[in-house]
Amino acid sequence: MQDRIHTADAEPGDDATVAGWVHETRDLGGIAFLILRDSSGKIQIKFEKDEMDDDLVETGLNVARESVIKVSGAVEEEPRAPTGVEITPESVEVVAPADPELPLDPSGKVDADLSTRLDNRTLDLRKDEVQAIFEIRAEILRAVREQFRAFDCTEINTPKIVATGTEGGTELFPITYFGEEAFMNQSPQLFKQLIAGSNVERVFEIGPIFRAEEHNTPRHLNEATSIDFEGAFCDQNDAMDVVEGVVTAAYEAVQENCEDELETLGLEDEFGLEDDSFPRISYEDAIERINATGELDEQLVWGDDLSTEAEKALGDDVGGHYFITDWPSEIKPFYIKDHDDDEQLSTGFDLMHPRMELVSGGQREHRHEKLIEGFEQQGLDPDQFEYYTKMFKYGMPPHAGFGLGGERLVMTILGLDNIREAVLFPRDRQRLSP
Amino acid sequence: MQDRIHTADAEPGDDATVAGWVHETRDLGGIAFLILRDSSGKIQIKFEKDEMDDDLVETGLNVARESVIKVSGAVEEEPRAPTGVEITPESVEVVAPADPELPLDPSGKVDADLSTRLDNRTLDLRKDEVQAIFEIRAEILRAVREQFRAFDCTEINTPKIVATGTEGGTELFPITYFGEEAFMNQSPQLFKQLIAGSNVERVFEIGPIFRAEEHNTPRHLNEATSIDFEGAFCDQNDAMDVVEGVVTAAYEAVQENCEDELETLGLEDEFGLEDDSFPRISYEDAIERINATGELDEQLVWGDDLSTEAEKALGDDVGGHYFITDWPSEIKPFYIKDHDDDEQLSTGFDLMHPRMELVSGGQREHRHEKLIEGFEQQGLDPDQFEYYTKMFKYGMPPHAGFGLGGERLVMTILGLDNIREAVLFPRDRQRLSP
Repeated sequence: MQDRIHTADAEPGDDATVAGWVHETRDLGGIAFLILRDSSGKIQIKFEKDEMDDDLVETGLNVARESVIKVSGAVEEEPRAPTGVEITPESVEVVAPADPELPLDPSGKVDADLSTRLDNRTLDLRKDEVQAIFEIRAEILRAVREQFRAFDCTEINTPKIVATGTEGGTELFPITYFGEEAFMNQSPQLFKQLIAGSNVERVFEIGPIFRAEEHNTPRHLNEATSIDFEGAFCDQNDAMDVVEGVVTAAYEAVQENCEDELETLGLEDEFGLEDDSFPRISYEDAIERINATGELDEQLVWGDDLSTEAEKALGDDVGGHYFITDWPSEIKPFYIKDHDDDEQLSTGFDLMHPRMELVSGGQREHRHEKLIEGFEQQGLDPDQFEYYTKMFKYGMPPHAGFGLGGERLVMTILGLDNIREAVLFPRDRQRLSP
Repeated sequence: MQDRIHTADAEPGDDATVAGWVHETRDLGGIAFLILRDSSGKIQIKFEKDEMDDDLVETGLNVARESVIKVSGAVEEEPRAPTGVEITPESVEVVAPADPELPLDPSGKVDADLSTRLDNRTLDLRKDEVQAIFEIRAEILRAVREQFRAFDCTEINTPKIVATGTEGGTELFPITYFGEEAFMNQSPQLFKQLIAGSNVERVFEIGPIFRAEEHNTPRHLNEATSIDFEGAFCDQNDAMDVVEGVVTAAYEAVQENCEDELETLGLEDEFGLEDDSFPRISYEDAIERINATGELDEQLVWGDDLSTEAEKALGDDVGGHYFITDWPSEIKPFYIKDHDDDEQLSTGFDLMHPRMELVSGGQREHRHEKLIEGFEQQGLDPDQFEYYTKMFKYGMPPHAGFGLGGERLVMTILGLDNIREAVLFPRDRQRLSP
């Protein structure tokens, strides 16, 4: 099959073979045009009825849209063609005919709702703007990995089948593992810490996480891609530096390497990150600023978690990415370390985009005794986590890290309305297939 | 914490702060040495008892092995030190004391069985040779991704929670998904095909797969890392070209970028790939060659699957990687295309390492009617897979691809005895934790 070239590589003067999908046909009487589409773009195929073999014309003009065809012929300059060149075919072969009734119109002329699009993702991905999102998603992951390596991190893969969830039994999908009860992991948290406590020191992982949350919103998924970092001899400020590096690298890579895709999405002019470092606002200052906006019905007091409305008020006030640091210890999970001089105050931080939370991180509790206390305070049985806690008896260095939501990163970078736009086959309460 | 430098960066003449694990201490009377270890290597800390503060000497020499300490002092040349430099400490801080009774000896002087090592992976990973394996694993994945991008592939992530398994209900882990029955995916096969049928055309994914196989051997895992490729307008020969490119890239990257790790593993002299293209042996020729070795008790006949013994006989005969092509259709799954001129013969191929199978691939059946027939012949209900089959009605191009076992690739590249050596937290019938 590889005797074909991509349409984008067809140069005037060449004899070329191209293959792809029938994007549209226009019959103008004596002359007709077929637009053929492949991964690289589109090209016009010209049929001059009087000068061509009848069979050839018939094949080219009767083929249903979205069929796969293979065309050989001379490439010529043609300023009136959409890409400035056209092919006069010597042969046209229908490689895979399409049913004339399509459940979805890949030319985008007829709108489809998200559910229909997800049910027919193959057709949906034949739209330039949908393809662009996933090309950009891939570039973001590439850039993020490269940045982690620049930070001296080793890529790891941790298990997705686990005996106990990171934060106990809530929000876990149960699985049957050779007769035993097990779960799909909701976070690589405990495992990445176990590796950061070894010679490897700094690790990252990009992999699936599974959360049986009942939420059904435009920014929640039940299966998501988590971008995780953990580093020995790091504190929360080091971890925030890594967050800034990774998010900045993602924006820069898209800007530098995805010009065409940004143009397809209409984002070429407004694209970019406001700054490569983000304000670090303490929780205490955050609630003060939120109260000062007057946007909330009730004033926040120290110890309150931040509602979506509170986050929105602060996001509008700040106007870009920002960290919230020094959260009350009670709001943060057991593995987050408290400040040494104030046990009510944790080293936990979140990175917020004006529209939503992107990152949760902090320095970890590395002292065995304190860790066991933390389990108990959170109502978890430390014995169930002995595989994890026991390693803290053998020289666990101070360490810090974070988890960054992969789809949320794509969603905020591209300004998508729904997180399902950033994942090929989303999983939510209603959707298990395809 | 980041006022420390790595031990490998400590230069004579510097005042440096290093932090890491107490690898060993040697008390020679008037003088004593402590070897401190971090991710970059080791460094000697010298204690001259008469010339130093008693508290400092006591702290340094009473600290248990594998404790985490932080040391500041002058770096000096010392040819008798293991790395040619040593630090005379001005301060020693015990950051995280270790229990003197270790379940595993990271210095490697005392052997431990695999089970003890996996139960204490943090300590196990403090051994140079274990760390080396996982640094190399990360480099292999990096190189493989880069090679896929060179082949014009887009990285994708497909769902791990699915309504139906790739090959039906066998060998699947069941999960409960909001009250519905679902499964952990055993292969991205059907999903990557759905994407290859779109404008994206060529895709790769590196992600976890889950197989409820009862096997408990040194080369099977119940959760593994699959390296997947799928390309539109490709046939089985194109897919084999991609296999060769990816495997070659992995070997070359390790050779070029992991010199130290290869030396640690004692592989620096014998390392390398026999050739960058692998013989393509048809199934028919393969059984002839196996029969000719005389290694099997019974002669193989056309249609037999190849046992482990048969593979071993052929592997010894060939002496390196090789493909087996043109398998009998009956042995291969429904989604593998048959040869157009012989329906008994499939386009399926395997890449074999002399020790085991690494890759399974082939051209896919892209014709809707034939695909439905294939389901029925394999005793599967095509209705259950309608989310997949219906996309074949709308212009599915010819396409081909493969799946490569990530841990098997690491295992064969490094000559590891057990696949569990190539994965941080293996999952098998006996092991669900850590």
